[in-house]
Parts: sequence; structure tokens; C-alpha cells
Amino acid sequence: MSNYPLLENIHSPKDIQAFDEEKTKQLCAEIREKMIETVSKNGGHLASNLGAVELSVVLHQVFNSPEDEIIFDVGHQCYTHKLLTGRFAQFDTLRQKGGISGFTNPEESEHDIFYSGHSSTSISAACGLARAKKLKGEKGYVIAVIGDGSLTGGEAYEGLNNAYDDADNLIIVINDNKMSISSNTGSLASSLAKIRSTKTYYRSRERFQKVLGHIPLVGIPLRNKIVKYKYALKGALYHSSFFEDLGYAYLGPVNGHNLARLKNIFEVAKLRGKPCVVHIETLKGKGYEPAELDPEHFHGVGPFDIATGQSPASSESYSKAFSKAICGFAAKDKRICAVTAAMPTGTGLEVFAEDYAERYFDVGIAEQHAVTFCSGLAKNGMIPIFAVYSTFLQRAYDQLIHDISLQKLKVIFAIDRAGFVGSDGQTHQGLFDIPMMNNIPDIAIFAPASFEELSSMMYRAVYQEELSSAIRYPRGGEFTLPENFTPDGKDYSVFEAPQETKTLIVTFGRTFSAAYEAQQELAREGIAVSILKLNKIKPVHPEAVAFASGFERIYFYEESLKTGGIGEHFEYLLSLHRFKGTFALTAVDASFVKPAQVSEQLHAYGLDAESMIRDIKGE
Amino acid sequence: MSNYPLLENIHSPKDIQAFDEEKTKQLCAEIREKMIETVSKNGGHLASNLGAVELSVVLHQVFNSPEDEIIFDVGHQCYTHKLLTGRFAQFDTLRQKGGISGFTNPEESEHDIFYSGHSSTSISAACGLARAKKLKGEKGYVIAVIGDGSLTGGEAYEGLNNAYDDADNLIIVINDNKMSISSNTGSLASSLAKIRSTKTYYRSRERFQKVLGHIPLVGIPLRNKIVKYKYALKGALYHSSFFEDLGYAYLGPVNGHNLARLKNIFEVAKLRGKPCVVHIETLKGKGYEPAELDPEHFHGVGPFDIATGQSPASSESYSKAFSKAICGFAAKDKRICAVTAAMPTGTGLEVFAEDYAERYFDVGIAEQHAVTFCSGLAKNGMIPIFAVYSTFLQRAYDQLIHDISLQKLKVIFAIDRAGFVGSDGQTHQGLFDIPMMNNIPDIAIFAPASFEELSSMMYRAVYQEELSSAIRYPRGGEFTLPENFTPDGKDYSVFEAPQETKTLIVTFGRTFSAAYEAQQELAREGIAVSILKLNKIKPVHPEAVAFASGFERIYFYEESLKTGGIGEHFEYLLSLHRFKGTFALTAVDASFVKPAQVSEQLHAYGLDAESMIRDIKGE
Repeated sequence: MSNYPLLENIHSPKDIQAFDEEKTKQLCAEIREKMIETVSKNGGHLASNLGAVELSVVLHQVFNSPEDEIIFDVGHQCYTHKLLTGRFAQFDTLRQKGGISGFTNPEESEHDIFYSGHSSTSISAACGLARAKKLKGEKGYVIAVIGDGSLTGGEAYEGLNNAYDDADNLIIVINDNKMSISSNTGSLASSLAKIRSTKTYYRSRERFQKVLGHIPLVGIPLRNKIVKYKYALKGALYHSSFFEDLGYAYLGPVNGHNLARLKNIFEVAKLRGKPCVVHIETLKGKGYEPAELDPEHFHGVGPFDIATGQSPASSESYSKAFSKAICGFAAKDKRICAVTAAMPTGTGLEVFAEDYAERYFDVGIAEQHAVTFCSGLAKNGMIPIFAVYSTFLQRAYDQLIHDISLQKLKVIFAIDRAGFVGSDGQTHQGLFDIPMMNNIPDIAIFAPASFEELSSMMYRAVYQEELSSAIRYPRGGEFTLPENFTPDGKDYSVFEAPQETKTLIVTFGRTFSAAYEAQQELAREGIAVSILKLNKIKPVHPEAVAFASGFERIYFYEESLKTGGIGEHFEYLLSLHRFKGTFALTAVDASFVKPAQVSEQLHAYGLDAESMIRDIKGE
Repeated sequence: MSNYPLLENIHSPKDIQAFDEEKTKQLCAEIREKMIETVSKNGGHLASNLGAVELSVVLHQVFNSPEDEIIFDVGHQCYTHKLLTGRFAQFDTLRQKGGISGFTNPEESEHDIFYSGHSSTSISAACGLARAKKLKGEKGYVIAVIGDGSLTGGEAYEGLNNAYDDADNLIIVINDNKMSISSNTGSLASSLAKIRSTKTYYRSRERFQKVLGHIPLVGIPLRNKIVKYKYALKGALYHSSFFEDLGYAYLGPVNGHNLARLKNIFEVAKLRGKPCVVHIETLKGKGYEPAELDPEHFHGVGPFDIATGQSPASSESYSKAFSKAICGFAAKDKRICAVTAAMPTGTGLEVFAEDYAERYFDVGIAEQHAVTFCSGLAKNGMIPIFAVYSTFLQRAYDQLIHDISLQKLKVIFAIDRAGFVGSDGQTHQGLFDIPMMNNIPDIAIFAPASFEELSSMMYRAVYQEELSSAIRYPRGGEFTLPENFTPDGKDYSVFEAPQETKTLIVTFGRTFSAAYEAQQELAREGIAVSILKLNKIKPVHPEAVAFASGFERIYFYEESLKTGGIGEHFEYLLSLHRFKGTFALTAVDASFVKPAQVSEQLHAYGLDAESMIRDIKGE
């Protein structure tokens, strides 16, 4: 018999609207089992999705998607929604090549209104959707589901500030899973306690069940330290009359795992006649003990063993190499500061947070602030290092120009997840950082091809460059490298062919490994190719261009977008040398790359050794 | 005798610290006179600066700059600061070539801590400065002065959320000049009234003087409509215990034109022992009646007659042409919506706001929200047009990728002030929009060279393009155009030389006029040059490249940054055609362009007819 007798028969949210509470409970249990089963194999966002099961199920019972439009901020809570909107059968393909996305994706379903993947946009989008419905006289609600973490991003406030008084079709559901509890036992916890004592719960005067009591906070002192930075804003929001003063009806808080209460509060929101904020309290990781105990680890997780919650020991990675490097500097230099926008684990800052707590700053999902804050630190003599995923740095483009470049200050950007990122797909690829930064004056960019190079380039950025630098490195670990490969500290390196040749590969970063493999394989076939490896990719060293201009055939491989990238610029520099040979640029043409393994993506875009060999052999 | 007996002897803030109240009053009067005199000639930000005179003078009396670091958000309030920090003698050069900047500029003075020009960054920068002082054990306060308008930008909240509890050296001064009073007579006014009735004023129980009473609100119904959109946030902030819940001591409000009260409240802030928010109420335009009566017009203003406040009738401009075009569409098509981020006048949306109020949205200084909001409107069937200055669109780079491009929606970006902007200088040049957008998939870019082309390209963007488009046009009016110049609706246009030639100028937008002048002048000298004018600059039409590849000498002129721009990309496309001629690209090399007249800037960067003629003649 199927493990999912209810779920396998649900093809549309309409199929669950008549479910009674008992049946709905069983449905929630099946959903949790399916999520755990799938994520344990494919990886994904688990804890956040487990916390939002009842919330999502009841939303789909009370509202009529897609006439009512439900948007999930950042998409970390959309698995239940996917399972209820015709994607149960495909759910095993989650985050895999050709499979369904881990985020909402309008190409998959009419129930997915927006792509999501970056934080804090849902309220703004919902304002637009709701306003358009009003202007056209269309029926239906627009519901933005946003986690408390996403409320630390500035755009969420811009959105809150722009709901119209007459937007009775706009409902903002705050999924408050208290991930800042560990960080902020003081003010947020007391704010919540105050709400409990002063707010009258809608339709119920009973004491709210203290889900908080389930979290053994004292058991995770390390994590307490890592995320110790307080996001006071959330406390201030729930504590004060903030939402009401903004013109919203404020409903809640209610227990986000109590089906009857959820149903009740959403029904009330529908009838409230003005824009509503509905405050739901959930337990991140709910229903799977390892995730309840360590929700941060299980927020986004790789494959794991369901029985124990254990993941295979993680291998060496650029993030870990970064961690070692920055801690090494910090030990000797009190000016070194580390800044993260809510990604201490992903970027490898746990150890720094533990050992140099005073100089460690987790600012929330607030990349704009992070960059300008670094600027202030630098102006007064510190050496700030902002560790950030390539894709999220996009949020701070203007600050890179206005608060870093123009100020002529020295801030280091450790850009993790640069290039293809694999399963996270369209919204998360690290392909924009180069064209984004290539036009900004006075910020150098380095691209290491090994852990040791990462460390050496960091050192150079911190101690030898006069102004700001970015070091961009990929997700995951090292690829093939030449024997005895060590950083030479130069702006570019040449790997000569065994015999004379007029063919040159130019590349940088991780794809150097593919170039090296191609060079070796071609040599075995008697074809000589030299490699020019750029280390400092911005500005490109004039000698590197001069060197390349002596070749007749240049193959440039770039794990980034083509337009505005290093390759196009390199070709322009070659033209100034009156280069008359052929120049073949392989980079990512303007497109959003779908989920797949990194190796599959490199192959699909012609950036692996096999593709390079084929190019050069002219096959 | 000098008009400025006190001011002319002030070379440093120390010189005013012993002033008694009477002398300080006289100083404030001199400052106002000097400001009005200078701005009436040079243009600049007047109303905001007039409102902040006492505030700035008293800050410099109570604090010791530069040991105490004062940052002015967006720089619209820094003229008093400049006059007190050794720049009285140069003040006549304000915003002129070789003169002092209209914004704070660290190259001018050690008292200018940061460049400023973009909104909502000061709190984040101050957090960094204050934290660095703490880490280094240095004395001194950090004071961020931020207007209520800047508080509508999301980064301000990110900053507020990240002040440390122990930051007793951090003071945030809110200069609340109630510019939203006209927009929001309802909720903000009542919030302020509530503060007045519930807050105990520090050291004084007297009724606060109602400066509001001075503004004849009923006299400006049009403006009421233009800025009718409510920025509720400000009401919510002052109304609630928001700041206190965030961990700040909240002091105020006090009358920002009462010297004794200002002195008192700043002294209290120094001793408060925790981060403070000091709420100051000022009258925008204070002391100059025309500016008090119409503070929005005098916020940023060109030269005017001091006696009457009248400016010369403004000539035709691209902004006005945009205004006509969008109103024309809106009259016939109910789907057309207009969005602005607090720039209704600058972008030419006054008439739209008046005639199509329901479809007009001023969202505050919130470009991120503006873009995502447009995305929501578009998804549900509207055709949103976001009118925005090139430089401010930088704030929404990630939203252009994540909320527009990826969603495959149709939103129109009317990018005003693209290219050189003249006197506003480094922070405001519209030079980044092309490299910023050139790498984003599925957003077309058009560049008109005449008002009629602007209108025709808008039409094409609205009704003929499948996905999103940006139309980028310059500040000011049309330049020289060929007789009977009319839009041909094509992606590119060719202006052939009178006789056969192998020399081609490629350009787009305003610099086409210079190219045309150069072509005419060269023809008189017997030198034949053809012109390829790009109309749709992204993507470049393949036929345009094929056409250009038939020439031997190509001169590409681009009023934008070189790296990542259209020219570099064009050269790469030529290389795919095996182009073997010469390619000379003139564009702005990575740099921040200082204040000067637009014509001076075009000349300095080789983008005027004279420079083109010189290039082509090889002189």
C-alpha cells in the first residue's frame, strides 16, 4: 500500500478543501513524510518547509488558488504548496536536472505566481498584484507569505510602507519561526512574551501553547554565539503597534500548527475589509526531531540519513578554505572584521564567530546595509571582509558604487558560490557578479583555482592592494590541478605547451582545471595548447593581453555571463593590440540556468575539458 | 561693509563654539542669506538646506568635528556644514566646474566623512564608523543626520536594525521636515499630533510651536495630488514605540529652529549612554518665503530671482516629452500605470498624477519596491512605466534581474538623466545604467536622440515589444538634429556620407547630434564620414554589425562607461564578423565625473563634435 494514500490523489488545491480536521492532519503527516524522504535524498530546504506545512495546507483550504494568488517570499516554504498543486508525482525530481525547482516557478504551475529565491520581495510584488486586481475590478485575494528572517531585508519595509488603505484584497502572512530566538533571547523573546500578555487572541482567550518550550536552547551554545547578533527589528515590530499604525489590521499571533486556529484567522483576514498582517508562530523543523533540534543546519541541507539526521562528512570546500584564511589573519591582526548577511554557516564563518565574536557581524538579510556598514568600518581603520554569495551581492550594486568605490575605501568581498551553483537553479546562479562589478572603478577582482590560491589572494587583497578587492570562488571543492600547483602571487600565470604552439586557452578560476585537463589530453594526442590563467581578472594585466596577442587562435572560457564579462573586455583589449587572429569566447549567454549538478551545467555550457578539446580539435 | 561679518571669519567649527545665542542667530541669518544668494545663481538644493541651518550650526557647537563624525544622508542638508568648515570663500563656486560639490565630499574637507548623494545610507555608515571607534577604543561620537524622506528607503531600516546596544557613541538625528504633510494630511499629521499630546518634551512642558501652521496647505491642491501617495511608515515610526523597542533612546521632538532647545537635546544625547534617535522638527524652506510656500519646487532648483522666487520659464526637455508621451498612452489605455520613487516633478509625472491619479504611484525613495511593485502590476495585466533617474535605478539591480527579467514580464523603464548630468557631479552621473543592464537577459534598451524618438520608442516599448524595455534619455533638451529628422522606427539608422567612404561613426542617443555636426563640418572640409545611429542599443541588431563590418575605420562614441558598455560589446560582435579594420572606442573610462556643465563634460570626455572631428582627422 502507498505511503501517501491522500497525497497521491491530490491534483489541485480544490481536492483538499472539503477535508475535515482529521483528514487534514493525516494529509500534513503525509506531506512531512514525503518532504523528509525527498530532501534526505536530493537535499533542499527542509526545516523551513516542515514549519510551514499546516500554514500552507490551510491557506489552500481557505483561499482558491490561483484566483487567489499566494506568493512565498524567498521560496523556502513552498514544498507543501508544490505537493498540493499537482506536483506530487514529480516531487522526487526536486532540484534535479529536468526536475522541479526548489523554489516557486511560474513555468511549472499556474499556482506559482512568481519566481522566488531572493529575500524580502514578496510584499512589494503582492502590492502590485493586489493593486492591479483593484484597478481591473477583479476578485480574489493576494497573499504574501514571508518569514521573520525576510523581514530583516529593507525591501520588505518599503513594501509594507506602500500598501493602499483600500487594499482589502491584500494579506501578509508572517511565518514567525523565531529563528532569531537563539540570537536574541533577550529582547525578542520578551517582546513575544509581552504580546502574549497584552494581545487578545482572536476568538480565543486561552493561553497560547508555548511551542518555544520545545526548543532546548541551552543545548546549542555554539550556534547561539554564531547568530548572536540581534535583529532587534523583529522584536520592535511585534511589540509595538507598528503594523496597525501603517494601516494594517494586525491579527495574531496564532499557533501555526493548530489547524482550527489557522483556518479561523485566515477566514477573519478575508472579511476584515482592509489590508491585514496575520502573525503565525511556527516551529522550524516541526515534526522531524533532528531538524527541530538544529533548525539552522536543516534550513538548507544536503542528503542525510533519515534515522539519525546525519549527513556524510562534508569534504573540503572553498568556503572552508576561506574560513581558515580569515581566521589566520584575524589571529594576528585586530583590524580584521567579518560581516555576513545571515549566512554564517554557508560562508564558513562559524569559527570566526566563535573566536572573534567582537569583530563578527551578522546583519540579517541586509546586503545593502552590510556593504555600507563595511564602508564605515573601513573609514575608521578596520579591514572588513564581507562574505557573501555571488547572487545575493546583486542586492548591493549601488552600495558597491556609492559607498565603496566612490569613497576609495578598502573593503574585501569574499564572493562565495560564484559561477554555477547546481541544484538551487535559476535564482541563485553566481553568474552576474563579474558583469556587475567589471564596470565599477577601483574594485579589483581575483579568481582562485585552488584553496591555496584563495588564501594567497585573500592575503594580497588584505595586505597588498591599496583599495577594495573581490575574491570570487565557487561552491564546492577543488578540481584537477597540476602537480605541485602553488600560487605564484602574480596577476596571471602561463602554462606553456610542451612544444611551440599558436593556440592559447585563456581562462580563470575553477575552469582552469578543465583547461589543464584539456591541455594534457590534447598533448597526448599530439596537439599543443598553451594556457593563460588570469588570477587578477580585473583589471586584466596589460602583459597578459600582450602575451595573448602573440597567438593565432585564442579560446577564452569564462564561467560567467558573456556580455559585460572578462572575455568580451579581453577581446577589446586584444583589438587595441591589433590582434588579427581568431578569438572564440565560451561563456554563459544571457539566460537563467536551471537546476542540475554543477558538472552537468559546466558541460551544458561548454566549460568542461571535453568541450574544450572538441573546440580546439574543431570537431 | 561685508554682508557676512561673522561668516567670513569662520574657518573651522571651533570658531563658533563660544557664540552666544544672539550671535548664533545672526550667524544663521548670514548663512541663509549666503545660501539664497548662491543657489539663486548656481542652482542647488535650497529648501532642505534652509530648514537645516540651526540644526547644523548647533551640531557643530555641541560636537567637535572631525573627531566627532557628522554624516549627512543624501547630502541635501550639508550647505551650512560646508560654510562652517572652511568653505565660505569657495561657496560661490558651488556645483560649478572646479568648484565645491553640492554634496559632502571627503576630498574637500576632513569634516566631510563620506561622499553622499544617494539616499538612506547614513545610518549604516554611521553604524560602521561608530563600531570601529569602539573596537579601537577611540573617543568621539558619530552623528547621522537623516531626513524623513530618506527613511522611506529600505536601507535605512536595515541600518536601524543593526545598531549595537553598547553604541553610546551613535546618534541618529531625524530631520523631520514633514514633506509628507501634503501627501498625508491624515495619518502622519495625526500621528504627530498624538506625539505632541502624549510625549513629554524634554526639559520643557510648554506647547510646541506649531510650525505647521505656517504652511498654507490648502493653497497647493495640485501638489497635494501629485504627492498624494501616503508614506505611512513615518507616521508609524513616530507614533509607536518603534525606536525604543529597537534599543534606542528616543529624544524629541523638538523645534529645529529653536537654538536653546537644539543645544539642550544634543547635550542630552551625548550623555544618554546608549544609541539615540533625536527627532527634530524643521520647516523646509525656512526663512525664504517662496521656499516655505513651495518647498518641493525649491528642494532642488535652478537659478531664480531672489525677490520673486521666479525661475526663467523652463525650456523643452526630454522629461516633458516623456510626460506628454505617457499621458497620451494613458488617455487611451487604462492599463498604463506610472510609478516614481519620490521624483514626480523631476521625471515629469505631474500631469499624469493629476489626470490619472488612480494609476499613479509615488512609492517614496524606494527603488527596490518600485521595481518589484511594477512586476506585480504587470503580472496581473497592467503596463507599468517606472520613471527613474539613471543613477537611482542602480539601487534596484537585483530586482531588475530577479523580479523583471526572470519573471519574463513587461515593464517599461523610463530612464531619465542618462549620461552626464552636469552640476550634481560624482554621485549622480547617469553612466552606469548601460553596463548595469547590458548583462540582464530580456530587457531591451532604446536610446532616443530627439523628443519625437522618445515618444516613438515609448510606443514601441509599450505596444510592440514582447518583454521589458528601458528607454534611456538625457537631462535637458534636444541638441542639433538633421532637418526633417523623424523617427524611422527601426533598430538602427544610417546617415550616409555624401560620397563613398570607409570611415564610420557609430553612436546613439544625444551624442548622435555631435556626430551629425561632425559629419557636416567634415563634409565641408571634403572628408566623408557615414554615421550608424543605434536606436535599439540592446540587443544590437545583427544587420547593424554587418553594415559596420564593411568599413575600414570605425569610431564608436558612447555617453556611458566603457567597460561593459555597448561599444565594447559591438567590437566583440564585429570580431565575429572577422572585422579587420580599426576600431576606436570613446567612452567614459572608469571614473566618477565631477560637477561641470553637461557641454563641458561631453567635451572633457571627447564626446562633442570638436573631439570627433579631431579624432577623424587624426590630429
